[in-house]
Amino acid sequence: MSDQIKPVDVLRSNVEGVREVRDSVAIEEPLEIRLEGTSLAVVMRTPGYDEDLVRGFLLTEAILLKPEEIAGINHVEESIVDVRLVDGVVVDPSQFQRNMFVSSSCGVCGKASIESVTLFAKPARDFTVRQSVLAGLTALLSRSQPGFSKTGGLHAAGIFDLDGNELDVREDVGRHNAVDKVIGAVSLSRWPLEPALLVVSGRQSFEIVQKAAMAGIGATVGVSAPSSLAVELARSLGMLLVGFARSSTFNVYSGETHLAVE
Amino acid sequence: MSDQIKPVDVLRSNVEGVREVRDSVAIEEPLEIRLEGTSLAVVMRTPGYDEDLVRGFLLTEAILLKPEEIAGINHVEESIVDVRLVDGVVVDPSQFQRNMFVSSSCGVCGKASIESVTLFAKPARDFTVRQSVLAGLTALLSRSQPGFSKTGGLHAAGIFDLDGNELDVREDVGRHNAVDKVIGAVSLSRWPLEPALLVVSGRQSFEIVQKAAMAGIGATVGVSAPSSLAVELARSLGMLLVGFARSSTFNVYSGETHLAVE
Repeated sequence: MSDQIKPVDVLRSNVEGVREVRDSVAIEEPLEIRLEGTSLAVVMRTPGYDEDLVRGFLLTEAILLKPEEIAGINHVEESIVDVRLVDGVVVDPSQFQRNMFVSSSCGVCGKASIESVTLFAKPARDFTVRQSVLAGLTALLSRSQPGFSKTGGLHAAGIFDLDGNELDVREDVGRHNAVDKVIGAVSLSRWPLEPALLVVSGRQSFEIVQKAAMAGIGATVGVSAPSSLAVELARSLGMLLVGFARSSTFNVYSGETHLAVE
Repeated sequence: MSDQIKPVDVLRSNVEGVREVRDSVAIEEPLEIRLEGTSLAVVMRTPGYDEDLVRGFLLTEAILLKPEEIAGINHVEESIVDVRLVDGVVVDPSQFQRNMFVSSSCGVCGKASIESVTLFAKPARDFTVRQSVLAGLTALLSRSQPGFSKTGGLHAAGIFDLDGNELDVREDVGRHNAVDKVIGAVSLSRWPLEPALLVVSGRQSFEIVQKAAMAGIGATVGVSAPSSLAVELARSLGMLLVGFARSSTFNVYSGETHLAVE
């Protein structure tokens, strides 16, 4: 916890005037991810759980296919990690970049982006989730957000089973990092993750649904709105996509056959 | 407006049961940015104001120094824009990438990231903003967010003068895109933008403050939390950084000498 948050002195202004108070902010620091010595990406992340972050990143960006391909993840410096692969696993770092799923050779457009993900996505087994489980998920997530309650500046991502039991939760200043961290953490005990529910504290963009699809997670649930391309991707993969999940109300944007109405 | 939002049929679940309703989602589509034919980046953006987005991106990532270096911005396809430069302006696209400010040659760390921005930042002239102006800014921004009120899925960024008059506002599914779009729009009439206030609907990360600094904007104001590195960058550049600006309350995280207490 301690390395996720930092105290800062601020001036608070309100109708009564201005006074100095002590506040907390979420820590943001760069991390360079190297694959066998070659720089792959720099992400702005909250320190802590760097190995989960890197493992999740490599899996959800389809740079690696399974956690067992990783021989080790080591900090070269505080802000540089290097990933070693097991003998026989060969990837070409030059062909990967953060936006690989939106710059496929068949052109740049939403349809091409979806096709690109479909090539690598792990299909989730058929499953259903009870209405009451979905209605309670974001309240469960918020209980595991100590960093958010202190700073208002950390996103959370959690993985739950189909009965709403928490498998793990991670917080990070970056939405994508929080998802990579929790997928990276849970991937150590099972891969692919399906059947499971990915719950996020914020909006659901294309990339969030993509990351879930890469992990074989069949359902994503968000407190806030999904984007058009997130909905289209979920529909094309038959995934359950739930948005605006707040107290007992939620919207199903995709995969309504996965919903068990009570 | 119409190309920013898309209707979708959803199932709404609440305590009364499940029913089909028509909802709206924010449109997310990839855009490839090319510089004289060479691919520079792919961004996931809401269509519309693509030229503003590209102009702002090139300026706030310090790929170009001023708007006049651009000879033209043209759509090669619906999702590909190519930028032509005026004669005599030469840039090497290969040396630029989205994370250039966090992967400087002096190492990857927060301190190096800040130094990297400082090299290119345009210092803002000395200025003060009245307390009452700051207190009213996010309410003003929310009045210019038609897309957010319909979808809950669009971020907004606005530029205001020191008296709180709106210069322009843009909405986008991406926080950084909204900032690039509004800076790109206002840059046509004045560059650098200082003195001015950048107001954002969400959180303030390092990159948001970086983009303001590149445009010479001396102050950023956000509805939500800043990150540690955003605060450190603003402090090292003497910028005003205001967070949690809600109704009449706000926190000053940096540059309190710019605040005119009333």
